[in-house]
Amino acid sequence: MAKYVYFFSPTGADGDGKQKALLGGKGANLAEMCRIGLPVPPGFTVSTEVCTHFYANGRSYPEELQGQVREAIARLETELGKKFGSVDNPLLLSVRSGARDSMPGMMDTILNLGINDQAVEGIARSTGNARFAWDSYRRFIQMYGDVVMGVQTREGEHHEPFDAVMHELKGEVGVHEDINLTVEHLQELVKRFKALIKSRTGNEFPEDAWAQLWGSIGAVFGSWMNDRAMVYRRKYNIPHEWGTAVNVQAMVFGNTGETSGTGVAFTRDPANGQKVYYGEYLVNAQGEDVVAGIRTPNHISQMASDLPEPYAQLTEVFQKLEKHFKDVQDVEFTVEHGKLFMLQTRNGKRTGLAAINIAVDMVEEGLITEEDAIKRIPADDLSHVLAPIFDRTAEANARCIGKGLPAGPGAATGRIYFNAVDAVTAADRGEDVVLVRVETSPEDLRGMIVAKGILTSRGGVSSHAALVARQMGKICVCGATEVVIDYHHKTVTADDVTLKEGDYISINGTTGQIFAGQIATAPSEIIQVLVDKTLDPSASPLYAKWQKLMSWVDARRTLGVRTNSDDPEQVRRAIGFGAEGIGLTRTEHMFFEGDRIDAVREMILAETKEAREHALAKLLPYQREDFTGIFEALQGRPATIRLLDPPLHEFIGTMTPEQISALASTIGLTPERISDRIHQLHEANPMLGHRGCRLGIVYPEITKMQARAIFEAAADVKSRGIDVHPEVMVPLVGFKKELDLQVELIHDVAAEVQKSRGVEFAYLVGTMIEIPRAALTADEIAASAQFFSFGTNDLTQTTLGMSRDDSAGFLGAYQEADILAKNPFATIDQTGVGQLIKIAVEKGKAARPGIKLGICGEHGGDPESVKFCHRVGLNYVSCSPFRIPIARLAAAQAALEG
Amino acid sequence: MAKYVYFFSPTGADGDGKQKALLGGKGANLAEMCRIGLPVPPGFTVSTEVCTHFYANGRSYPEELQGQVREAIARLETELGKKFGSVDNPLLLSVRSGARDSMPGMMDTILNLGINDQAVEGIARSTGNARFAWDSYRRFIQMYGDVVMGVQTREGEHHEPFDAVMHELKGEVGVHEDINLTVEHLQELVKRFKALIKSRTGNEFPEDAWAQLWGSIGAVFGSWMNDRAMVYRRKYNIPHEWGTAVNVQAMVFGNTGETSGTGVAFTRDPANGQKVYYGEYLVNAQGEDVVAGIRTPNHISQMASDLPEPYAQLTEVFQKLEKHFKDVQDVEFTVEHGKLFMLQTRNGKRTGLAAINIAVDMVEEGLITEEDAIKRIPADDLSHVLAPIFDRTAEANARCIGKGLPAGPGAATGRIYFNAVDAVTAADRGEDVVLVRVETSPEDLRGMIVAKGILTSRGGVSSHAALVARQMGKICVCGATEVVIDYHHKTVTADDVTLKEGDYISINGTTGQIFAGQIATAPSEIIQVLVDKTLDPSASPLYAKWQKLMSWVDARRTLGVRTNSDDPEQVRRAIGFGAEGIGLTRTEHMFFEGDRIDAVREMILAETKEAREHALAKLLPYQREDFTGIFEALQGRPATIRLLDPPLHEFIGTMTPEQISALASTIGLTPERISDRIHQLHEANPMLGHRGCRLGIVYPEITKMQARAIFEAAADVKSRGIDVHPEVMVPLVGFKKELDLQVELIHDVAAEVQKSRGVEFAYLVGTMIEIPRAALTADEIAASAQFFSFGTNDLTQTTLGMSRDDSAGFLGAYQEADILAKNPFATIDQTGVGQLIKIAVEKGKAARPGIKLGICGEHGGDPESVKFCHRVGLNYVSCSPFRIPIARLAAAQAALEG
Repeated sequence: MAKYVYFFSPTGADGDGKQKALLGGKGANLAEMCRIGLPVPPGFTVSTEVCTHFYANGRSYPEELQGQVREAIARLETELGKKFGSVDNPLLLSVRSGARDSMPGMMDTILNLGINDQAVEGIARSTGNARFAWDSYRRFIQMYGDVVMGVQTREGEHHEPFDAVMHELKGEVGVHEDINLTVEHLQELVKRFKALIKSRTGNEFPEDAWAQLWGSIGAVFGSWMNDRAMVYRRKYNIPHEWGTAVNVQAMVFGNTGETSGTGVAFTRDPANGQKVYYGEYLVNAQGEDVVAGIRTPNHISQMASDLPEPYAQLTEVFQKLEKHFKDVQDVEFTVEHGKLFMLQTRNGKRTGLAAINIAVDMVEEGLITEEDAIKRIPADDLSHVLAPIFDRTAEANARCIGKGLPAGPGAATGRIYFNAVDAVTAADRGEDVVLVRVETSPEDLRGMIVAKGILTSRGGVSSHAALVARQMGKICVCGATEVVIDYHHKTVTADDVTLKEGDYISINGTTGQIFAGQIATAPSEIIQVLVDKTLDPSASPLYAKWQKLMSWVDARRTLGVRTNSDDPEQVRRAIGFGAEGIGLTRTEHMFFEGDRIDAVREMILAETKEAREHALAKLLPYQREDFTGIFEALQGRPATIRLLDPPLHEFIGTMTPEQISALASTIGLTPERISDRIHQLHEANPMLGHRGCRLGIVYPEITKMQARAIFEAAADVKSRGIDVHPEVMVPLVGFKKELDLQVELIHDVAAEVQKSRGVEFAYLVGTMIEIPRAALTADEIAASAQFFSFGTNDLTQTTLGMSRDDSAGFLGAYQEADILAKNPFATIDQTGVGQLIKIAVEKGKAARPGIKLGICGEHGGDPESVKFCHRVGLNYVSCSPFRIPIARLAAAQAALEG
Repeated sequence: MAKYVYFFSPTGADGDGKQKALLGGKGANLAEMCRIGLPVPPGFTVSTEVCTHFYANGRSYPEELQGQVREAIARLETELGKKFGSVDNPLLLSVRSGARDSMPGMMDTILNLGINDQAVEGIARSTGNARFAWDSYRRFIQMYGDVVMGVQTREGEHHEPFDAVMHELKGEVGVHEDINLTVEHLQELVKRFKALIKSRTGNEFPEDAWAQLWGSIGAVFGSWMNDRAMVYRRKYNIPHEWGTAVNVQAMVFGNTGETSGTGVAFTRDPANGQKVYYGEYLVNAQGEDVVAGIRTPNHISQMASDLPEPYAQLTEVFQKLEKHFKDVQDVEFTVEHGKLFMLQTRNGKRTGLAAINIAVDMVEEGLITEEDAIKRIPADDLSHVLAPIFDRTAEANARCIGKGLPAGPGAATGRIYFNAVDAVTAADRGEDVVLVRVETSPEDLRGMIVAKGILTSRGGVSSHAALVARQMGKICVCGATEVVIDYHHKTVTADDVTLKEGDYISINGTTGQIFAGQIATAPSEIIQVLVDKTLDPSASPLYAKWQKLMSWVDARRTLGVRTNSDDPEQVRRAIGFGAEGIGLTRTEHMFFEGDRIDAVREMILAETKEAREHALAKLLPYQREDFTGIFEALQGRPATIRLLDPPLHEFIGTMTPEQISALASTIGLTPERISDRIHQLHEANPMLGHRGCRLGIVYPEITKMQARAIFEAAADVKSRGIDVHPEVMVPLVGFKKELDLQVELIHDVAAEVQKSRGVEFAYLVGTMIEIPRAALTADEIAASAQFFSFGTNDLTQTTLGMSRDDSAGFLGAYQEADILAKNPFATIDQTGVGQLIKIAVEKGKAARPGIKLGICGEHGGDPESVKFCHRVGLNYVSCSPFRIPIARLAAAQAALEG
């Protein structure tokens, strides 16, 4: 018989920590904590297989499930000496979701399940604490009404309906804090809550415990497909097929009085990685109270004086957990009458800064290996420590209007918006946005995604805002309690300064400071050491850790990392970041500089070969100078140089009538002829038009000029004692013969230049693989190409029949509809484009065993794509300078995975 | 030792007729004629392998060649009792090219080789015919000077230089016809020819026979790569690698007097296929005289009275040849002193009309099988008998200005141009061109390719013009001797009418008549019977043969043939041509008709889903009506209907400000909003933009409306007792999920319509495979697709990264540079695009064994592509109505090729 229910308790557990796919992260770790002897309230996990079954079978359960749940409940009753559904001694339960990867706040939780009108009296009697009993009951009704029965905020309502009822009652009885409500108040509240449910749904709140349980299980499974869960999974690429587990657990109560409480904590600081306990708790509170930000919680360290005994237990648990899980743990706990219970543990989400600090520290503590450190840092998160910080002087001179908790390090400046919709609209307009909220909830996710920074006035370092900011690497200041936010007037006021929607605000997520207006930024610490050399390495402990990590990375990776660059200064920066050469120089990027564009336009407008050669002769010294600078910057590293690629219309299509007139008189053509030529060169689909090597085939003199510029520069630099390795790349090849024709020209020029200058240098001639036909016929093409460089931007466009520029109109809809898991222009579409790359690699290697293989599309800086490149056997990736450390780390991870 | 030289003579032959690849067509058939006892002057063939070696080794010969040639010459000397290079009894030779496929007039020929200043006297003595000796000598010098030494017309010269010299001499001595030149005149001519050679080349004409021979062999091999040969091969897709053979043969002389002569002939009429001897000859003439059109030759039938004995021999040879080669033969012969010699035989090129008539006749004569008949007709040539003819009444009322030889049947009307350059320029402007020349030569080929018709005033039915017209299926009237053509003034005058360049002229290539002005055309005979039903089948012998041929074709082919059509009338025509259904209905073609475009624009400009649905509701009845008409016309045959495909901008991008204003007031939007929307929908690369199923994904209501229109029409027609088989096709799918989403909508609508109308009908839902990703993931997609239709237009664009619209700028250069053998938008690029098709077929069949596979790109009517489709296992092709018979024939040929 299939097993769907996994029991756990201090007396033993069916599952263990490795079974995250089956039991979800929460369920697996609850079992694991039981196994290592930590205090966990007993319970059971309904596996993710039930969720899969649920969605595959019209939201119904497997037959065996009911019996297995009854059996587990019976075992709980035996272990705890309570009875589910009993009036006098009821077993109360929590029901919580738990997916394979944690999805904080994304799905629903129900606490105190099993109470009804009779049981509440029984609990009051048996605990002697009527207030606790009624508080628990009203909480249960509220959660159940919301999550299971669907009583939620409607359009036009400003408050969650249960909150509104409570707010009204508090007004009537003159009470400010929930905690000051009396038993009678709570009884009245229960009555009103039930009435609300009835009026909103037409249904009665169920008094039967079993009905409550099944309703709750169904609601958790149902929440897996709710909108915010889907948005979250899309953002984090969690497959919808994974499903969630449901954890049903005996309740422990943090709301029984002053010796009770509840909290969340990290074993180290997840914002900066320091080895200090981090988190917060509330006395006499339950469940979501800490995270929801309704009461401002206390820092975890304060627990040592408030609840000394449980705090001692907790620090002991912390040490045990880190030792066992070998990672920072993010826990939830409840203290009931002075006794600690662990409700959850998981690996803590952390910022990139924290990830580096923690990983290197843990290696040094002997807790993990260097390989573990490499594997565990999400490569993309390295960008967190490369992002700009505020310029020191500018920050000192700025108007500081307040301070909050530093929840996401870095510097953010942007315009203020108060909700997700406005934030998204502004970001679409191209504005930098700082999202300002009293507190955030999963509904704000879309706004948080587009924001440069997040500022909240409520909620601590474990609040939703802090947690999401940490995970996304967003700059965040939270719990800035002195800041007054007025949603209605769309203003934020602090220290006598009032800022309106659209005004600039700046936040420092490293210090927690808030500033009015914009503040100029400066390069990050790492960049100041590595690239700008403006900071002494020994003055930066972060740099020391970075350096250690990168040395481990480079020792393991086999994939080379180059940069895409057209500029000597940029090349030097890239080398600072670890670039081993240039993977793509776009020669035409230099065409727009200064008065070169005139010569370029003259070349394009030439009506005879002679006139064209005349114009090209003007361009030659410019190009030679460009390449000279690049070769000097590279100091012997290889440079892949792509010949002219874009359609000629790009260089003349934007000319104004004035420019046309001016050029006409310079080059001796009539403005009409120039206009005619512009018209003639216009293309319906320039991406598929007369560009790439098609230019060099029709105008071989262009190829010759570019080859000459490259080789003359190479000869000059080489003759000054600097080694050079030009790799001339012919773009947009689809047919072997195209390449043959260009290769012959290039070799001829190379031979001529080497002879005339009396300098020999090594060089390669190869091609981009960027149209499907080239990949499909890579065996033929490899016979003439010394290297392939995959131009995955164009290859994606042609393989998917999708223009990058034009896909904005539907790509959003496509991601929402789950047609595409990721933007294929950011991450290689492995199923489609990847297949062509594999074909090309296989055929290319078969035809020319030593062929050099690289990628120069923008995918070269995307970790997932880098790993793909490693797996298919490329020699190197190439990306923009800032992505180089990311590519290096991803390459090392790929090597360790491989 | 490698054998490079193959001897042939009536005493035996080294080679035979099957060795065309090795010996060329001419050499192989010379050997074969020797083997079957026909009178052939002995000689030898230097194989095509030498040509390959020649080009692979810097134009040098294999070592063994010289010895083998000397040996063959020695054998010739022995057999004929003459001596090569001798003064008194010289062996004279012809040297001619001969490729695998005949390339008439494309390469060079040298006759009378072996004469020099001494030998000419010897020949005069031994033959007692000094005039013959000197005539032969001047001819040899002329040919050798032109072909080997390169004395050719220069820019600015109006005449070939040797002709100019001869013309001058004739003027000086007052002679009009070459034949009236005396021995003394000829001796003077020889002197002047040699002087011309010396002055033009700086070199002396070689007196040494061996030098003459090797020079000539080298010239023939060299001519393989000359410009006109390359153009010809490109046009007929003959690989450059094949190379040519060289045939060296003992001379026989048609220029020895009145009992000698030379001619060319066909065993049947190659213009219309009638079983009559066809051809022409000249008495006392040599070599190219007949073809060159300098003297007007006599019809072959006249030979019966002029040269009765040789004519009897010739008719006997004709019968022997047809029986042996089982095809129409195109022969060259020479009569020397009353004795017939065969110089060449080959299968005769013929028009499409002739091809049908001859093939069917030969089956009926028991000469060939039905399969032979099918294999032998070039599928494309069927179009010749489908091309329009002149409207009978219009032709009767037109001004007939002359008559020539009917050399290419059909009716052509166009503007007069007098040379290839002007013809090409005019054709590029979109004009219909009739090329008018005194006579044509290979230099005119480019002009002949673009011309609708060709008219010459000189040269008979074997002239270059007639021959090329026949091969290309061009409409041609040649040898219209009364017509006076003035190149200088660019006029043509006949029967007192003078027409200028650019004026209209009409020619009837079936009757030979020439008309001033344009004449309206009417459908061809076949179409009148098959489609228009305006002609009684029994009144058309051609139809009877057509019908027979097509019944053989249909009995053998396994590939279905459908049509691309959006219009009921067109569908009926296509069924007349044999269409078995519709392979592609482009629903949007109907969008531009009448006032529908307003509703379409309203739909596009709608700002809400409701507004869009409102506009779609207006379109629904139109679309339903369209499909009703199509289903009625199909009478139960299947119809593949493609959902909306083009980017929406296509429907609104061309609106004028007035149209915008008018539409704005109709649909209640401001003109500014409409202009904004037009701007917003503009795409950089619309081919890769928001189109195809991407529209249906973002606007599902469009798909729903179209599905509803299709299914409601189907229900209506079915309920009237006519069967329907709609096949709904989702365009531009690249991801399975795209298709899933659309398929679900379509099934929902189908179910709803069938239920509400109470009618059941069968239907399929499938997809186009038109982007590489779809082909690469065809296994996934097949799970949701009941059929695939390859959209090879788009698939070619994306696989080659080449826009059909924009490739005009370089495709010409690409074909000239041999990068592309054929236009990939006309004939499937089997190496690239074909590979994707194969992948998709394999994966599609693996995932869904019974999947229906077709092609709906324009390649479906191209014979080579049709054969490819058969080979890869498609079920059907689809093409425009006129191409259907061609596709049927190509499909049968593919089946026979296995």
